[in-house]
Amino acid sequence: MFLFSQPVPTLCRNGDSLVILDQTALPWQRVERRLTTLEEVAHAITTMQVRGAPLIGCTAACGVALALSADARDPQLEHALATLGATRPTAVNLAWALARMAARLRPLPVAQRAAAAWTEAATIGAEDAATCAAIGAHGLALLRTLPPRAGRPLRIMTHCNAGWLATLGAGTALAPIYAAHAAGLAPEVIVSETRPRNQGLLTAWELRSGGVAHRLIADNAAGLLLARGEVDVVITGADRIAANGDTANKIGTYLKALAAQANGVPFYIAAPRSTFDFSAPDAAAIPIEERSAAEVLEVCGVDGDGNSRQVALAPADTQVANPAFDLTPAQLISGFITERGIFTADHLREALA
Amino acid sequence: MFLFSQPVPTLCRNGDSLVILDQTALPWQRVERRLTTLEEVAHAITTMQVRGAPLIGCTAACGVALALSADARDPQLEHALATLGATRPTAVNLAWALARMAARLRPLPVAQRAAAAWTEAATIGAEDAATCAAIGAHGLALLRTLPPRAGRPLRIMTHCNAGWLATLGAGTALAPIYAAHAAGLAPEVIVSETRPRNQGLLTAWELRSGGVAHRLIADNAAGLLLARGEVDVVITGADRIAANGDTANKIGTYLKALAAQANGVPFYIAAPRSTFDFSAPDAAAIPIEERSAAEVLEVCGVDGDGNSRQVALAPADTQVANPAFDLTPAQLISGFITERGIFTADHLREALA
Repeated sequence: MFLFSQPVPTLCRNGDSLVILDQTALPWQRVERRLTTLEEVAHAITTMQVRGAPLIGCTAACGVALALSADARDPQLEHALATLGATRPTAVNLAWALARMAARLRPLPVAQRAAAAWTEAATIGAEDAATCAAIGAHGLALLRTLPPRAGRPLRIMTHCNAGWLATLGAGTALAPIYAAHAAGLAPEVIVSETRPRNQGLLTAWELRSGGVAHRLIADNAAGLLLARGEVDVVITGADRIAANGDTANKIGTYLKALAAQANGVPFYIAAPRSTFDFSAPDAAAIPIEERSAAEVLEVCGVDGDGNSRQVALAPADTQVANPAFDLTPAQLISGFITERGIFTADHLREALA
Repeated sequence: MFLFSQPVPTLCRNGDSLVILDQTALPWQRVERRLTTLEEVAHAITTMQVRGAPLIGCTAACGVALALSADARDPQLEHALATLGATRPTAVNLAWALARMAARLRPLPVAQRAAAAWTEAATIGAEDAATCAAIGAHGLALLRTLPPRAGRPLRIMTHCNAGWLATLGAGTALAPIYAAHAAGLAPEVIVSETRPRNQGLLTAWELRSGGVAHRLIADNAAGLLLARGEVDVVITGADRIAANGDTANKIGTYLKALAAQANGVPFYIAAPRSTFDFSAPDAAAIPIEERSAAEVLEVCGVDGDGNSRQVALAPADTQVANPAFDLTPAQLISGFITERGIFTADHLREALA
């Protein structure tokens, strides 16, 4: 079994508060942030201080527990579920975790709810870590089946960040990569910067910390590298997978899937069962979050003196379209790497529903 | 005839020097730069102070004239041709303009060369402006044939900057858009920011200055917008087009072409005859420029005080792949909008060679 310990916990409980690693400060600063109220938890999810479908699910579960620690009566429970449920629309893990909390907590006497909520949230977190490990093991087996390359490393392209930062464990898309690295396969990862929020830089930071070889590219460069035969497999995470296998993931995933298919490169989605939404028949049922223009018009970096700085790329009144996710049709997806194994779209329901 | 006057000249002669609009300072600052030596001209092309395939061709021609104004003997002529020819490898307009200068100047007596060089460079520039106007007219006719839309404007997606900034006239890909705007078609342009150098911001600046409606997107968002049916046609420029129609253009063009085809949206290349390289049978014969890692790792913007600032996105020693162009196969291209008309790939040779 491939064991992985998060270098910094993405989320932990401290009494009746939460401590998160603020991902908006990465990769330059390691800022831990204490959340003590429901509103602070909701804000952390909305502003993407915590991000990644599995992690926001568990964070929301902890947010319910935190709210109930102050007041466990019905109105507060329902208020917490509604507040957290409204933070982000696309990743179904959020709705999944809240539904699980609701089912566990609503039947309980008020006096038992807070403790039960913390236990359930901790269980969700522990299950997520185990899920990541299983995804890593199944993914490693897949990577071992890829045809050998002449004179270059096993090369995996990913998108956005679906690493340990996005989960309570080793990650989803990056779990097979960490497993391959641990197994001595010496993989090299092609990391798209993932505009507009540049979560690829989180992936590069993770891989650097873990000693995994990687190269950063502009998102635009993915097509050429795939066409040149420089990539063996593409693996990304997901935010919601419909019953037919259509997949919502970070904006830009669809373009990589198109380029992979056009060039005969396998394209896999790595995701836990909680990312599958069998109530959505296909992509048309998945809501796409539109985020603020500022994400496109401004960028945060570090100046020559090492100070974090926000700079504007274009005038603030520039008209912008900023959908945060896109939809990859099932036909472009070679398979889904889950904790229960690897499945093609036409077997999802029997394997997972 | 659609007439267009450049709001600021991209390139002009001033005695025995050149004055360029420094495009690395746009969209925030309007910096005119005087170039007085061959080396300064070569530097301006290499560092992309001037950019865009037609403009760098004409700038190189002027660079030859400038060098010959100081010394018109054979060694200087050959040195100028070699120096300018080595600045950038992909855009064939550069090699085309230099070959034209060489053919005109090598047979001449030394005493006549400088004046003839300036005349030939000016002719190249004037021809480019006329070419842009003709591309605009043919492109406008094409836009008029697109099916009418219900309740939304004619919407054109482009990539990078192939506007007046890239030429001596109205532009290539943007010429049909300016013509449509002038004709009252009220087009809206979807502008990709075009990482890593963000030339889409130049396009947004051009369109804003010209009063043309537009929305800026992250490059990653192109696929979703095309899949949603929000775009009527994609038009980009080109840096080199092989005999079979395979096209090198700014990195990311290929991904848009794939997404356009997957969603039944026509995809056109707008380019002058000088961008066609019939000596290259197909994409395999086109060299792809690899540019510096810093283009990916750093970004320039404006801080809250209005000062231009370079910020780092990732550590300077991050491994990077930064190909500046990609290759779009002819099968993905609906047609080529040229000054002689619009042609499909299988008719290029008879129409243009």
